[in-house]
Amino acid sequence: MNKIVTISREFGSGGREVAKRLSDVLGVAYYDKEIIDHIAEKTNFAPEYVATVSEVPTMSSYPVTFGRTFASNVLSPSEAVQIAQRECIKELAEKEDCIIVGRCANSILADKAFKVFVYASDMDCRIDRCYNKVPADKEIPRKKMEKEILAVDKRRAKYQLAYADQKWGEMSNYDLCIDTSKFGVKKAVEIIAHAMKVYYE
Amino acid sequence: MNKIVTISREFGSGGREVAKRLSDVLGVAYYDKEIIDHIAEKTNFAPEYVATVSEVPTMSSYPVTFGRTFASNVLSPSEAVQIAQRECIKELAEKEDCIIVGRCANSILADKAFKVFVYASDMDCRIDRCYNKVPADKEIPRKKMEKEILAVDKRRAKYQLAYADQKWGEMSNYDLCIDTSKFGVKKAVEIIAHAMKVYYE
Repeated sequence: MNKIVTISREFGSGGREVAKRLSDVLGVAYYDKEIIDHIAEKTNFAPEYVATVSEVPTMSSYPVTFGRTFASNVLSPSEAVQIAQRECIKELAEKEDCIIVGRCANSILADKAFKVFVYASDMDCRIDRCYNKVPADKEIPRKKMEKEILAVDKRRAKYQLAYADQKWGEMSNYDLCIDTSKFGVKKAVEIIAHAMKVYYE
Repeated sequence: MNKIVTISREFGSGGREVAKRLSDVLGVAYYDKEIIDHIAEKTNFAPEYVATVSEVPTMSSYPVTFGRTFASNVLSPSEAVQIAQRECIKELAEKEDCIIVGRCANSILADKAFKVFVYASDMDCRIDRCYNKVPADKEIPRKKMEKEILAVDKRRAKYQLAYADQKWGEMSNYDLCIDTSKFGVKKAVEIIAHAMKVYYE
């Protein structure tokens, strides 16, 4: 069986960077936004459209209606993307050792994957990390940045509930949860890589 | 500064065993029920009494009344135990490298300790672990055992809220959270010990 790591993450925790570095350390493939192109190819939707719905909960996406709408029994475009995404994640996990970021992969591959949640308990760390990604001349007050960070987390939680029927960030849905405020990204990667080694021994 | 590990744990997750083994691996002191004797000595209460209130929330223990009751400005016995426990935990952390189990130590030593939460996402694992600790002739249905396990967790959560004003089991209150259903106790210890090494490097 392939070695699959799923990385779920709080916004601004450095989870994406953890995943990237981990893929370098382990020498395995890394899928985050790359999944969007796979889905675009599969569904014939434009990658730009896929990107807008790929991790976003929609009105019609709550568990009972997953797959088909009540009214028409026909897939809505965003539902088609979700289903393609789910299939794509399963195929990637079948194909090779890899790291998959977000997208309910921890639920889709629940029994197959090594499931990590990356968080940052210190909000200042998250805000600073986000500032590093916006142009220096774009002035955003820290309070506003914090609000935006929490809004992204809220969207992710809503998405996880909608498509995986899981509470996002609840530790029982993951094998290992790690605070980058405590360890920083580099040490977090070292710890996760070692935990994987120990697990597969 | 001393190296202090606090181990918070779900009931039946093997957290206590993790703490014990970790103390062997690291060669440092381990405090769980041992704290009770320290407190008994400090307060002159019988160890049996201390044990009954040491991790148990009481009516008068909610945050606003912590320390003294409204009515009399005099400490209730259980409040006296909580205060002695808090002092005892701080003293142990000042004295030597050690591992402290439960008792809100993650909050009392928030900035000083390496804070671990041990959980077991698989309820069957928790039930089996508890069965190993009851005499073979004592028949307890699995459903009843599950109920008792969840009741202990609930008490711990209430205690954490009362004395630390924290949500028990919320990952942001810990540095590393680890699922013994995934790793087992021995590997969990190996992972925590390595994470500590990496952190203090």
